[in-house]
Amino acid sequence: MMQSFSYTLSELADKVGAELKGDAGEQISGLNTLQDAITGELAFLANPAYARYLESTGASAVILTPVQAEAWTGNALILENPYLGYATLSHLFDGDMGQPEGVHPTAVIAPDAQIHPTAAIGPGVVVESGVQVSENVRIDAGAIIGHDSVIGAGSHICRNVTVCHGVFMGERSIIHANAVIGADGFGNARSDGQWHKIAQIGGVVIGNDVEIGSCTCIDRGALGDTVIHDGVRIDNLVQVAHNVVIGKHTAIAANVGISGSTKVGEYCTIAGAAGLAGHITIADHVHLSGMAMVTKSITRPGAYASGTGIMEAGEWRKNAVRFRKLDDMAKRLKQCERRLDD
Amino acid sequence: MMQSFSYTLSELADKVGAELKGDAGEQISGLNTLQDAITGELAFLANPAYARYLESTGASAVILTPVQAEAWTGNALILENPYLGYATLSHLFDGDMGQPEGVHPTAVIAPDAQIHPTAAIGPGVVVESGVQVSENVRIDAGAIIGHDSVIGAGSHICRNVTVCHGVFMGERSIIHANAVIGADGFGNARSDGQWHKIAQIGGVVIGNDVEIGSCTCIDRGALGDTVIHDGVRIDNLVQVAHNVVIGKHTAIAANVGISGSTKVGEYCTIAGAAGLAGHITIADHVHLSGMAMVTKSITRPGAYASGTGIMEAGEWRKNAVRFRKLDDMAKRLKQCERRLDD
Amino acid sequence: MMQSFSYTLSELADKVGAELKGDAGEQISGLNTLQDAITGELAFLANPAYARYLESTGASAVILTPVQAEAWTGNALILENPYLGYATLSHLFDGDMGQPEGVHPTAVIAPDAQIHPTAAIGPGVVVESGVQVSENVRIDAGAIIGHDSVIGAGSHICRNVTVCHGVFMGERSIIHANAVIGADGFGNARSDGQWHKIAQIGGVVIGNDVEIGSCTCIDRGALGDTVIHDGVRIDNLVQVAHNVVIGKHTAIAANVGISGSTKVGEYCTIAGAAGLAGHITIADHVHLSGMAMVTKSITRPGAYASGTGIMEAGEWRKNAVRFRKLDDMAKRLKQCERRLDD
Repeated sequence: MMQSFSYTLSELADKVGAELKGDAGEQISGLNTLQDAITGELAFLANPAYARYLESTGASAVILTPVQAEAWTGNALILENPYLGYATLSHLFDGDMGQPEGVHPTAVIAPDAQIHPTAAIGPGVVVESGVQVSENVRIDAGAIIGHDSVIGAGSHICRNVTVCHGVFMGERSIIHANAVIGADGFGNARSDGQWHKIAQIGGVVIGNDVEIGSCTCIDRGALGDTVIHDGVRIDNLVQVAHNVVIGKHTAIAANVGISGSTKVGEYCTIAGAAGLAGHITIADHVHLSGMAMVTKSITRPGAYASGTGIMEAGEWRKNAVRFRKLDDMAKRLKQCERRLDD
Repeated sequence: MMQSFSYTLSELADKVGAELKGDAGEQISGLNTLQDAITGELAFLANPAYARYLESTGASAVILTPVQAEAWTGNALILENPYLGYATLSHLFDGDMGQPEGVHPTAVIAPDAQIHPTAAIGPGVVVESGVQVSENVRIDAGAIIGHDSVIGAGSHICRNVTVCHGVFMGERSIIHANAVIGADGFGNARSDGQWHKIAQIGGVVIGNDVEIGSCTCIDRGALGDTVIHDGVRIDNLVQVAHNVVIGKHTAIAANVGISGSTKVGEYCTIAGAAGLAGHITIADHVHLSGMAMVTKSITRPGAYASGTGIMEAGEWRKNAVRFRKLDDMAKRLKQCERRLDD
Repeated sequence: MMQSFSYTLSELADKVGAELKGDAGEQISGLNTLQDAITGELAFLANPAYARYLESTGASAVILTPVQAEAWTGNALILENPYLGYATLSHLFDGDMGQPEGVHPTAVIAPDAQIHPTAAIGPGVVVESGVQVSENVRIDAGAIIGHDSVIGAGSHICRNVTVCHGVFMGERSIIHANAVIGADGFGNARSDGQWHKIAQIGGVVIGNDVEIGSCTCIDRGALGDTVIHDGVRIDNLVQVAHNVVIGKHTAIAANVGISGSTKVGEYCTIAGAAGLAGHITIADHVHLSGMAMVTKSITRPGAYASGTGIMEAGEWRKNAVRFRKLDDMAKRLKQCERRLDD
């Protein structure tokens, strides 16, 4: 059976420092959206577009801003940022049981690895030589920590993750299942048409409060390190090539690819499946749309996009054929203008 | 040595309910295409474009439609849908040895997990607390089943798969190697430019007869579940974000990304590397072309596409430069028309 | 502690057959770029654009061409191809400790698997029935080798890799962490709107000196094999579908997807996130740009591209809207020309 939860509304208010309106003893057993919430659940109004669901919600209480709360007669937790309040409270309703403290007997720990006694290491985990596992680290089943890596305090390595050798990871960071940190970058020298492997002798440095998604790959540097700064969020199936640097608090959605030595600024957002060429620089506060194709540096903050929108396939085909002659069209248009001028 | 197979043509005819023409005792040891088949092999004609290979095929027998069989003098299995016949018979020639029934001694099974005696659980598998593994389930080496998950009868979890906690999986479904089911969705609240993690407290519900490819990631819901309905096919390296719903019998090719809370209809086909924005709805019977960029809901069945076709790079560059001024070109064209009208 | 290295300059010169200029006994403890090198490090000048860093480099020696070396008064290793020299020497500075020879006691080896005594097999590895592991093979922790596979001499299977059954792998090839070789291709026959799985009864054949990236998926053939020829380089998160053939010495960057039965020629380069449709052929010496969308065969060597470039989002939107009417624009332009002709 999954865990069940129950808190009084006043316990939750205390947790987030919210002003409580209504029944402080109301029992809350779950979180939900305004639309789907039932009795016993706490909902939140983060997006004003959903305000229309407020009247009909089945929630036993709602997180609201002071202004929203004025017109609301039910139970409420009042906060300036209801979405942040929801984020904070969500952790109280998390059914993930975690890993018991200590080392599971089937884990294989190198004799010279340093494992803090508060660390929780699951079944089948392998911790190689020279690794340092800090306090309150959690390593789930099947994960492997390559030799000479450091896992900072409070970090969490999920199931079947591979951390290769010599990776440094800060505090309170999370690596989701089956991600790979520190595999070789794609480095080859060509000679006579054949590829000669370049050993990737740099490392990976991951900051504090970083989260990296499932099946995401962060390659080690060729020379020097690949660096993921504090507070970065990376979703699933993202490629981060060797010697990339991601500035702090940047968020990168799934399926993005970032080529070698590219530097992404701070506070950027990169939407899903965008692709960044190598050896370019993206300024701070840049926002890339989904599937954006970035082949050169972006030097100014702002929103950027590429591609063409979705169309009915027959219509699309007619337009796509014309794209092949767009340069020709431009020249002919110029010609028309000249003839009209004459 | 890989297994070898041998069936008489009449055994195969019985298996698929085909009419048999020719030598019922012909020994068949393999399947192949018309072009590549040699003596002892059964071929099939599914695509009329390949009918030209019929005359020269080395196959000992061919699966044909009644009409195709009229002009064919060799051995044949006659079926209305030869490709479906091939699909059915293919399983008789599958060299995958499977996993022996029972629990391998190196598997780590939580004391309170319920393992059906007919289940086959391989080396190094971890089954966490509260898991239910049903009859005839197969879990291959290195797979991990997170606590409180349910694996329905006849389902197959391949090597090194991660199923996180609280995942519900129906019957006869397959999860291919190194896929991740139920990792955290990408949920963060922003405050003062920094990201605050939102615990992902929903689950994943996978229906019956679903197949999910290698290294594909199906995230758990933020609130409520991510749902993959019966009969869905998902290829490798696909991202299915939190709270996505995929309608029954929809097929999704490799490298596709589907953003959070998007609902895909039934009987859709999504070609490789298409990208779907979040919070949109795709109608039933929609077909998306490869690399299609879908930023808004599609409300009518049909085929849809986006992008531009491949070109020689020099030509492409000239056209792509003009695209940057397409709005300007459109205005100038309008201007030319006005001047001509005057 | 990570390993430290020290070689004399003359030892390094001998290793790559370079002419040595300067102090043969200079101690070299690392490699670096011209810009970042400090005392004790060897740098290289591969890209003439970086020649400006030569004067100010802190490197104790530099790999140069004969022409570059003329004007250089410091220590040098002189080679026709400095980048290749760097590639060769990089392996002397690789901190990867490898795996000790022999089978780790926690590995699960099938009784009938053949393991060469020089092979190194790490903790938690599973080697299934009928597998052949050749001399000097290295299999890292958590990797699984499916039954009846062959791993050729000197090959290296990294942590948590899945090799499915019946995969043939040549010599000196590398499979990076969490990659999947030989999972089922995406094969289904449709009947009454539902999908029926086609057993994937072909295999995978990987040549010599191949390198395959993390989380990359190479599917087994439906009938016949998926083939990766000698010297191919494949980066991370690449999808290679069933029955694809990749010609020798072709390099494929991250996030690329290649659909079923497509044949890619020799000496091609495919940049990141390109997508190739199924059943097409790409000639030798073809170079595809990043995110290129290839829907038909390419029969001539050369460089090819598709898509549109990145723009400020507001500008992009105006142009993308016009693309929807490009066919109409082309017709109206033609009409203007006709009116001008009249």
